[in-house]
Amino acid sequence: MQTLNSQTILSSNHYTMAANVLYQYSVMAALMDGVAEQGLPLDRLHEHGNFGLGTFRHMAGEMAMNEGRVWQMTSDGGIRELDTVVEAKQDNDASCCPFAMVTNFQPTIHDALPVDANSIKSKDDFSTWLDDRLPANARNQFVALRLKGSFASVTIRVIPAQRFRGQKLAELTAAQSEHTATELRGTVVGFRSPGYAAGFGVPGLHLHFLSDDDTYGGHILALDMGSQKGQAHGIKFEAAIMSKLHLELPTDDADFNNAPLKPDLEAIQKAEG
Amino acid sequence: MQTLNSQTILSSNHYTMAANVLYQYSVMAALMDGVAEQGLPLDRLHEHGNFGLGTFRHMAGEMAMNEGRVWQMTSDGGIRELDTVVEAKQDNDASCCPFAMVTNFQPTIHDALPVDANSIKSKDDFSTWLDDRLPANARNQFVALRLKGSFASVTIRVIPAQRFRGQKLAELTAAQSEHTATELRGTVVGFRSPGYAAGFGVPGLHLHFLSDDDTYGGHILALDMGSQKGQAHGIKFEAAIMSKLHLELPTDDADFNNAPLKPDLEAIQKAEG
Repeated sequence: MQTLNSQTILSSNHYTMAANVLYQYSVMAALMDGVAEQGLPLDRLHEHGNFGLGTFRHMAGEMAMNEGRVWQMTSDGGIRELDTVVEAKQDNDASCCPFAMVTNFQPTIHDALPVDANSIKSKDDFSTWLDDRLPANARNQFVALRLKGSFASVTIRVIPAQRFRGQKLAELTAAQSEHTATELRGTVVGFRSPGYAAGFGVPGLHLHFLSDDDTYGGHILALDMGSQKGQAHGIKFEAAIMSKLHLELPTDDADFNNAPLKPDLEAIQKAEG
Repeated sequence: MQTLNSQTILSSNHYTMAANVLYQYSVMAALMDGVAEQGLPLDRLHEHGNFGLGTFRHMAGEMAMNEGRVWQMTSDGGIRELDTVVEAKQDNDASCCPFAMVTNFQPTIHDALPVDANSIKSKDDFSTWLDDRLPANARNQFVALRLKGSFASVTIRVIPAQRFRGQKLAELTAAQSEHTATELRGTVVGFRSPGYAAGFGVPGLHLHFLSDDDTYGGHILALDMGSQKGQAHGIKFEAAIMSKLHLELPTDDADFNNAPLKPDLEAIQKAEG
């Protein structure tokens, strides 16, 4: 039922919104300041696309959206798919997203990783690979990207929910749980943002992971695409370059209104890099 | 004829675009890096609103847009109203804007400055006045604002056009011409952007001035709203809070693609503050 619902919504997306326009709700600086009481109602995510990432009220775990389906990954290792319409009606942490990046992802770049996938041992390796592989006109654009296949190793973090209103993201990441899994299948959903996005987004790579069996996922700290056995995994790479960003700010959120929201590149990279 | 044309376009705006959505073309970091060969064709400005500011190809002067009419102010003191359709067809500096901020300005805040207008002697005074006067929910939003009336003193700068491709904005502002006029009537068009806009915009106030007689204008360095005679000028203040920003990036501009585009708050404030 839920899947059917998602499929229906996904189909309608193709007709009601432009492809590969990046929609962002609020700014990273607000999360840094602990602004996480309110947010975009979960059932409004689909209005902006079928693919993305973000967090939930009180920063209760990590949000990943793929093919119109939405998951919540919490610091106790829990992973669950959400019925966004149902959740939005509740008054719980999964009812809204204080921060989200969503796009109607229609990949314009399809590729299979070359056989030297074994050389991608880290996020830095992947970033370099992107630099070499993406067209020259992508350098200062936003990029939505998805990797699907089998990974040698993925290290993720999930942050605990806020224990008090206004608790800052840096405090939560200091208490994050980290896990590493090896030889697993799954999907990476994420974005690469240009450096000038420092004030309102996460410059560089921002990637979330979800295993095929829905048991392992979170914010990616490290990944290794190479096989231990020296064989490439046949990871499918898809991407779209986005030259349009629609930024929507909270309008009636006193926490947002009163937060200092200073751009702090170093702190954001420490929290989300 | 030209005015009629502008009026027609202005009217159609009211029906085709949402009010007070901020449209921005490219990012300030690109101007800092001297990216100014290409840009938004001048006849596309009206698609996004009736009010705004920006610059022209080669950063040839300052652009101001008010009530759907567009002016170019050059460093030789020249001020001319542009027929955007005609200019867009030329291959000259006024054909396009490498950077522009435009909105369909429908003021939601109307006010007459209080009698103590004499206390607004500087941009800092005006910024403080805004902090006190605007609603609390404006603090972290973008604000479009217009001042119309008689000013005791307005100091403007106009930058010279680039002498070579890629010449950086900081070099141009170092060679800017500065002028001060006193006891004059005119209009201030501008925006106030939040601090987290540092990477892609101008945090704080960004104001352009145009005198009622079209003889004096440019980027405002200083202004004094008070009368030398101790009487308030009856300046009309209008503003709108904007919670939605649509950012459009150049897509086929090699200069943009290859620019480093590092966020440099200090340099931007020095150039545009």
